[in-house]
Amino acid sequence: MTTATPADRTLILSRTFDAPPALVFKAWTDPALLKQWFVPRPWSIARVENDVRAGGSNLIVMRDPDGNEYPNQGIYLDVIPNERLVFTDAYISAWLPSEKPFMTGIITFEAADGGRKTKYTARVVHWRVEDREAHEKMGFHEGWGKCADQLAELLATL
Amino acid sequence: MTTATPADRTLILSRTFDAPPALVFKAWTDPALLKQWFVPRPWSIARVENDVRAGGSNLIVMRDPDGNEYPNQGIYLDVIPNERLVFTDAYISAWLPSEKPFMTGIITFEAADGGRKTKYTARVVHWRVEDREAHEKMGFHEGWGKCADQLAELLATL
Repeated sequence: MTTATPADRTLILSRTFDAPPALVFKAWTDPALLKQWFVPRPWSIARVENDVRAGGSNLIVMRDPDGNEYPNQGIYLDVIPNERLVFTDAYISAWLPSEKPFMTGIITFEAADGGRKTKYTARVVHWRVEDREAHEKMGFHEGWGKCADQLAELLATL
Repeated sequence: MTTATPADRTLILSRTFDAPPALVFKAWTDPALLKQWFVPRPWSIARVENDVRAGGSNLIVMRDPDGNEYPNQGIYLDVIPNERLVFTDAYISAWLPSEKPFMTGIITFEAADGGRKTKYTARVVHWRVEDREAHEKMGFHEGWGKCADQLAELLATL
């Protein structure tokens, strides 16, 4: 797989976490852990149903502070445990196209510092430049950044 | 996998071929065979480069009678030898979104008549109703029907 993605359609967040790749990957895939960091507080995650394998479905229901719920449905396209996770909202199940394909997330977990740390890179690639722009205006950098902070806090407790 | 796809976004062609599933699957995946039936004559296939596995790329260059070439690039999403082949133009490689996701092809090969025949179903699912309509107007039924005739002729010689 190439990790070169078109700059005008891609948003990227990178971090180095003080935890091994297996633990960061677990925080991305174990529903109980995912719920603790995946949306910026005071939003929360009401429900996670995820079948972590290529073609597996993935449903994450976000909840705002007023209790309104926002389901996000997609599938995993590619799963290499502790190394890579690729998912998209272009299909709501394998292989049923969604109403509107918006993004593909390519998350890589690379061992650093002899495996004690993880170089974490989240690439979010959009089909259209307008969608990248809209996602940026929706607060991608702040939102994913705040979630990465929450993830770091969680990792420190595991 | 469910084979239920939304009717207003799906085009379907079904046939029963006098050949076992393994042979029909081979005609879909072996470049030398694919070239012999995949576009309605007098169009032809100039080149096929296909890596038949989930995530593998697939390039088919069509050529019109004047020699103009039309590349079609996509990836395979799901491959079960002799049973199912799923591909899309939504990615030009794994996992690089294309400029415009148009369709996903879900081809199933089911054994019939004790394995001597194949019930062949091609489901072409689009993201947008307009794309299904456009594909239908471009001559989906005639085109895929003519190709299925060419495939039947080829199978009879193998």
